Amino acid sequence: MLCEKSEEDKGFQGDTMPKIAVILSGSGVYDGSELHEAVLTLLYLDEAGAEVQCFAPDKPQMHVIDHVKGEPAEGESRNVLVEAARIARGNIKPLSEAKASDFDAIVLPGGYGAAKNLSTFAVQGANCSVDRDLAKLVMDFHNQGKWVAPICIAPALIAKIFADAGKQVKVTVGAADDPSSPAVTEMGATHVACTVDEVVLDEANRVISTPAYQLGPWVADVAKGIKKLVDTLVEKI
Amino acid sequence: MLCEKSEEDKGFQGDTMPKIAVILSGSGVYDGSELHEAVLTLLYLDEAGAEVQCFAPDKPQMHVIDHVKGEPAEGESRNVLVEAARIARGNIKPLSEAKASDFDAIVLPGGYGAAKNLSTFAVQGANCSVDRDLAKLVMDFHNQGKWVAPICIAPALIAKIFADAGKQVKVTVGAADDPSSPAVTEMGATHVACTVDEVVLDEANRVISTPAYQLGPWVADVAKGIKKLVDTLVEKI
Repeated sequence: MLCEKSEEDKGFQGDTMPKIAVILSGSGVYDGSELHEAVLTLLYLDEAGAEVQCFAPDKPQMHVIDHVKGEPAEGESRNVLVEAARIARGNIKPLSEAKASDFDAIVLPGGYGAAKNLSTFAVQGANCSVDRDLAKLVMDFHNQGKWVAPICIAPALIAKIFADAGKQVKVTVGAADDPSSPAVTEMGATHVACTVDEVVLDEANRVISTPAYQLGPWVADVAKGIKKLVDTLVEKI
Repeated sequence: MLCEKSEEDKGFQGDTMPKIAVILSGSGVYDGSELHEAVLTLLYLDEAGAEVQCFAPDKPQMHVIDHVKGEPAEGESRNVLVEAARIARGNIKPLSEAKASDFDAIVLPGGYGAAKNLSTFAVQGANCSVDRDLAKLVMDFHNQGKWVAPICIAPALIAKIFADAGKQVKVTVGAADDPSSPAVTEMGATHVACTVDEVVLDEANRVISTPAYQLGPWVADVAKGIKKLVDTLVEKI
C-alpha cells in the first residue's frame, strides 16, 4: 500500500510524469494541515497523473488543539512529521530532505499548521518568520523556474518568503476584506480577491493560489478551487 | 465554518435533502478512520447534495500508532471522538447521541479504527464484538428500512452486527483471497469479491459496500468506488 508509484502505473512515458512535492504541517485544521485540503490535493494530483512525495518538518507542533472543544489540549505534545504521516499513510519524508531538483512543482495545503508550524504567521502576522528549510526550498523551486502552489492561508507564507528574497508576489487568501489580507499586503505582496472555485495566477513568478477554507464553506466548494489549482499546475509543467 | 448546512443552501425543497450519518473511528489509517476514505465520503456526499452529521464513540482508542514508524507509540492515549473531530472540522457528536430516525442512511468509512475502536475485529477476527451503540444504531437503521453503507474493512463489522441479529448479509472486503474474507464468511455473511471501482449491493438487506483501501492502491482508485457507493446510496434513498 505504501509502495512507490511508477510512471508505468500512470501511463506516462519516460520523463513526462509530473513529480510534485506536497508540504504538510500536521494533521487537522486547527493545529496542522487542513485534512480536506490535503486529501483533495493528493486526490487531484493522483487523478492528473502526478507522482507525489509528501514532506513535513520533523519538529514539535506549536501546540495541540482539541478539535471538539477548539481549545489547546494542555500537556500534550505532537511532532509535525509524525502527525502529517497520517495523511500520507506513512509515505512521508522530513522536510529537510526535500530537494527542488527532484520535483517539477511544490504544493502547500493550508490549515493552521501552515501558520503555526511552518511559520509564525498565526502569532506574528506580517512580522512572522518562516521555517528555514521551507523558505530555502520554495526559493530553490522558484530559482529553478518551477511553480509554487500555496492553498488557503499558505499563500501568506509565500508572500513572506518571496518578500524576504526581495520579490513581490501576487497571491490570494480569499476575499478582499479577509482578516489576513492586510498582513499579506504589508509583507510586500499583492493580494488579489478570489472566489473559492477559482485560482489566482502570478505568471511572472510562477505562483498559483486558491482560497479553499479561507472561504469554504463546504468541502465541495473547496474541492472546485483545489481541482482547478492542480489541473492548472499540471498543465503549466 | 462549522455552521449547519440548510436545505436552502443545497437547492433542495422541503424534506428531499438526504440526511446521512457518517461514523468515524479516529483520524489516521492505522489507528482510526482512513483519512482519504473519510474525506472522500464527505466530499461526495456534499457533492450529491446530502446533509451530513459525523459521529464517533467518546472513548479511548485501542492504541496510538506512530504513522512514520508503523508501530505503537508507547505511553500515548487518545480519544476516538476527539481525534475524529479533526476530520469533521469540529462538527461531530458522540456516537451515543445518534438516532436512526434523524437520518436516511448511515455510512461507515474504513481504516483500522473500524477494526480496533468500533469493534475488536483486528484482534479477534470472526469472534469479535462490536461497539454496542454502533450495533444498536446499525440495526435501528436496518429495521427502519434504511440503507447501511460500509467501506473498506467496515463491512466486516456489518457482517457481525447482522449475524448477531440472525441475518445473513452480502458484503465485500475486496478480493476473493483477502485475508479478512474467511472471517466475514465465518461470521455468517456472504463475501462477494469486488474491484476497487465497484460496489456490492445487497438489495434485500439494503447494504452497499466497496473495498477502497482493502485494494487501493492509489487514492484516485479508492475515490472511484467511494463515489459510486455515495451516488448509488443517494439514488436509493
